[in-house]
Amino acid sequence: MISGLKVIAPASVSNLACGFDTLGMAIDVPSDEIIGKWSDTPGIRILEVTGYKKEIPLSPEKNIAGITAMALLRHLGEEKRGLDLKIHKHIPAGSGLGSSASSATAAAVLINEMLNRPLEKRDLIPFALEGEVTASGSRHGDNIIPALIGGLILIRDIETYDYHRIYTPPGLFMAVLLPDVMISTRSARDILRKEVTLKEMVAQSANLGSFIIGMNLGDLDLISRSMKDHIIEPQRKHLIPYFEEVQQVALSLGALGCSISGAGPAIFALCQEKLKASDIANAMHEVYARHKLDARSFVGSINHEGTIAM
Amino acid sequence: MISGLKVIAPASVSNLACGFDTLGMAIDVPSDEIIGKWSDTPGIRILEVTGYKKEIPLSPEKNIAGITAMALLRHLGEEKRGLDLKIHKHIPAGSGLGSSASSATAAAVLINEMLNRPLEKRDLIPFALEGEVTASGSRHGDNIIPALIGGLILIRDIETYDYHRIYTPPGLFMAVLLPDVMISTRSARDILRKEVTLKEMVAQSANLGSFIIGMNLGDLDLISRSMKDHIIEPQRKHLIPYFEEVQQVALSLGALGCSISGAGPAIFALCQEKLKASDIANAMHEVYARHKLDARSFVGSINHEGTIAM
Repeated sequence: MISGLKVIAPASVSNLACGFDTLGMAIDVPSDEIIGKWSDTPGIRILEVTGYKKEIPLSPEKNIAGITAMALLRHLGEEKRGLDLKIHKHIPAGSGLGSSASSATAAAVLINEMLNRPLEKRDLIPFALEGEVTASGSRHGDNIIPALIGGLILIRDIETYDYHRIYTPPGLFMAVLLPDVMISTRSARDILRKEVTLKEMVAQSANLGSFIIGMNLGDLDLISRSMKDHIIEPQRKHLIPYFEEVQQVALSLGALGCSISGAGPAIFALCQEKLKASDIANAMHEVYARHKLDARSFVGSINHEGTIAM
Repeated sequence: MISGLKVIAPASVSNLACGFDTLGMAIDVPSDEIIGKWSDTPGIRILEVTGYKKEIPLSPEKNIAGITAMALLRHLGEEKRGLDLKIHKHIPAGSGLGSSASSATAAAVLINEMLNRPLEKRDLIPFALEGEVTASGSRHGDNIIPALIGGLILIRDIETYDYHRIYTPPGLFMAVLLPDVMISTRSARDILRKEVTLKEMVAQSANLGSFIIGMNLGDLDLISRSMKDHIIEPQRKHLIPYFEEVQQVALSLGALGCSISGAGPAIFALCQEKLKASDIANAMHEVYARHKLDARSFVGSINHEGTIAM
């Protein structure tokens, strides 16, 4: 029995322009940490939350990590245990980078590892999903699955946990700009029209298909042509100041694709080299600086391990 | 200079349940033949059409093969040539099996081969498309490209000839039932509602993505789960007598997927062995026999060569 443990969970970029509610990719910067320690006092206590702690409740019944941990402990017949948690949030909540998902997968992996791994990682999904649904109100898995197992993932049907890893060629990096504006996943979802034209559907699904083929072949041009979003992005971009200018800068500097991560406001740019990703992250940041707006930027490689114990 | 030549063009199954206007697969049965011979008398003459010749005009200005041949000869500066054509249609027009596309690719490859191949096969697409548009009024390429180059093809954007071959595992066969009813591509298209829900789009595109992944991995279960059409099939199936009964029989006998080929009325069932495909074709045919309706059935393997000279 492990008395204390640290677990790290990666951020994730979902949608990826051509895969609304279907595609997600884990990236290694930023990532969350959770530290757990068994205690003699029954119940879960969140001792501290550091980092981007805004809007993160300390009460375990309202905290995503707490909800996930409790659900899993109950499932394993260990609900009488005492557990102290410390959470270090590097992934801001409401960023579009899967912050809720990472909190959930971190807690699920933590409990599983502390109990000497009674479950496979795959079996942790329902518990992590339960935690995330509380936060976002929607149940897609396009952040949960990549955060949990890493890599680029297609969700075919989250209800049956039918998801699939997509091969990615080496050398891909994400440049991410995180504007300092708050968008709730719920409201970003509410503004979407509920119907699309048949023609839009054909174009969008063809792009998703050719994106997968491009990844399989390592055909960067094809990946780039496929990363177009004519449906969701035009409806959400108005929520993000200067989105078009940022996107234009990223693409003109050679990003393979650039769009809104999840419900935003994070803007991602997929790039083929770390140096280029770094230049592009700086240039995107520069757009915000010019307009005297606050933002953070990151450069992350694809995380292939998902949520792991240290 | 070749004085006379025979060219064979395969049929094709398009849409494949999860890829409306995007996916097409060439199959080797049935296939069309066209025989061409240079003549000293300028102009194109269609000397005969045999086989399923119903509704196939002999006038070269109205005949798909004639239109395609003329467009290509003009492009190559050979419009003063005399050409006699004999066409043997094994693919019935209005079947949903790409009959128009095969007529067009057959003529394009014939002219190109008879002139000692001045163009790559890829460069023949615009001329074959021109011929097909005349017939169907729509320009998708999901029959033209598979018929021309063979295999399972995803069309990303036909306007830029952006199409991609999808790997297929060995051992796949198509059982096809062709009911003796006439459906025009135009009317089958007109009945489709012009909008789909966002949720339907997500499910359909996820299925297209996982279909490609399944093909890449040779994961037959995944291919089977992905071959679902909740959008187009429910709107078109009423045009085909006893569609649901035929589909039910095919799936209960182990077909990986079963739906309408293109605009119908052909019903395809993708199967993993030739014997099984043969059993399933018979069982589908049997449904029609029980209801005293005429139909034909075929079993075809995937054609990987496309349209070729013999």
